[in-house]
Amino acid sequence: MWQLLQFPLCPFSRKVRLQLGEKGIAYSLKRENPWDYRDEFLHINPAARTPVMQDEARGLNLSDSVAISEYIEEVSDKVPLISGSSAYRAEIRRLVSWFDQQFYGDVTAPLLHEKMKKRLVYRQSPDSRVLREAMRLADGHLDYIDYLVDHRPWMAGGTMSMADMAAAAQISVADYLGGIDWTGHDFAKGWYAKFKSRPSFRPLLTERMEGITPPKHYELVDF
Amino acid sequence: MWQLLQFPLCPFSRKVRLQLGEKGIAYSLKRENPWDYRDEFLHINPAARTPVMQDEARGLNLSDSVAISEYIEEVSDKVPLISGSSAYRAEIRRLVSWFDQQFYGDVTAPLLHEKMKKRLVYRQSPDSRVLREAMRLADGHLDYIDYLVDHRPWMAGGTMSMADMAAAAQISVADYLGGIDWTGHDFAKGWYAKFKSRPSFRPLLTERMEGITPPKHYELVDF
Repeated sequence: MWQLLQFPLCPFSRKVRLQLGEKGIAYSLKRENPWDYRDEFLHINPAARTPVMQDEARGLNLSDSVAISEYIEEVSDKVPLISGSSAYRAEIRRLVSWFDQQFYGDVTAPLLHEKMKKRLVYRQSPDSRVLREAMRLADGHLDYIDYLVDHRPWMAGGTMSMADMAAAAQISVADYLGGIDWTGHDFAKGWYAKFKSRPSFRPLLTERMEGITPPKHYELVDF
Repeated sequence: MWQLLQFPLCPFSRKVRLQLGEKGIAYSLKRENPWDYRDEFLHINPAARTPVMQDEARGLNLSDSVAISEYIEEVSDKVPLISGSSAYRAEIRRLVSWFDQQFYGDVTAPLLHEKMKKRLVYRQSPDSRVLREAMRLADGHLDYIDYLVDHRPWMAGGTMSMADMAAAAQISVADYLGGIDWTGHDFAKGWYAKFKSRPSFRPLLTERMEGITPPKHYELVDF
């Protein structure tokens, strides 16, 4: 069986877990704090990033969430999430990259640094200026999501895809850390509510990161 | 015909150009400085990053170098560069991500900021501490490349792949900017020399970025 090395607030692990959940592929979780730089972990993935997906029986060690997602798509034909014409697949992948890199860099990474790493690793208080800037940028990202899902049933177009998984993964971590103000973002909120009620998403929403409590609305489908 | 929006020292555009060159796909270049934040460019790619690959006749606008590379692989069966088993393809994609993100973040991005953007945009002198740190990290990356190509004919394994294109693209920009010291890296040097002599690579090596002169060895196959 697959084993996923991850920690509860890793957005890239969440993206892969949503994909595995939608496809009904069984896996177990193994906790890995990349900031511990464990020798054994660095040996498996020199990039020192989660997730890593392992199948010890078959000697497989897959690193990098994009490489893992593409692998899962290739070996599973259930619920295809990178499908359609090559141009449509390019749009799915563009948006995955957008959420993995732009949204992560603007919003999720600073929130994780200020609210999780400073608390758990450095024992420091968060910098309120950095938090305000991340929330300001989150608002711009929600505008873009409003625009996308006003014009399309799902993030990349007519079908649910890895773009939705990538977006929901980043947003869910930012929302857990109190970085999302949904006011005025009805289209994005409607899309996210639809997503929150999916069986693939429920297990993630009930998990907690030690010492960090999410806002009340975080787990509610009606928020 | 395809048109690639790029600037001469964009490593992600170089990666796509190497792929197009290996496959013998015709394209023209259009200069785009992402740091100008041209409205028309932002409208096409809100991430404000090069490359963007366009085919105006067919109304195609592709953004994000990974999405573009996967698209090219899907529509062209000549010289496959993401091929083999799913596990091998995952290794290719892991390394593409390694060079696009880790090498870029550690080495190419700080070199481009200090030696190109500060000169052309901000009219400032480079910070020598930042340059030294980028070169120190480049040395570690070259150690990793030494290790890989000592164990494998090409970067990801038995065949030339997008991992080689991604690596050569980043290294070539870092080398142009004087950030690579090849001393003691014979395996990496041997791999790069082999690459430098390929017809796909020659046009890139003869191009120049205005106001920035590469070191003498940059263009030489025997360096």
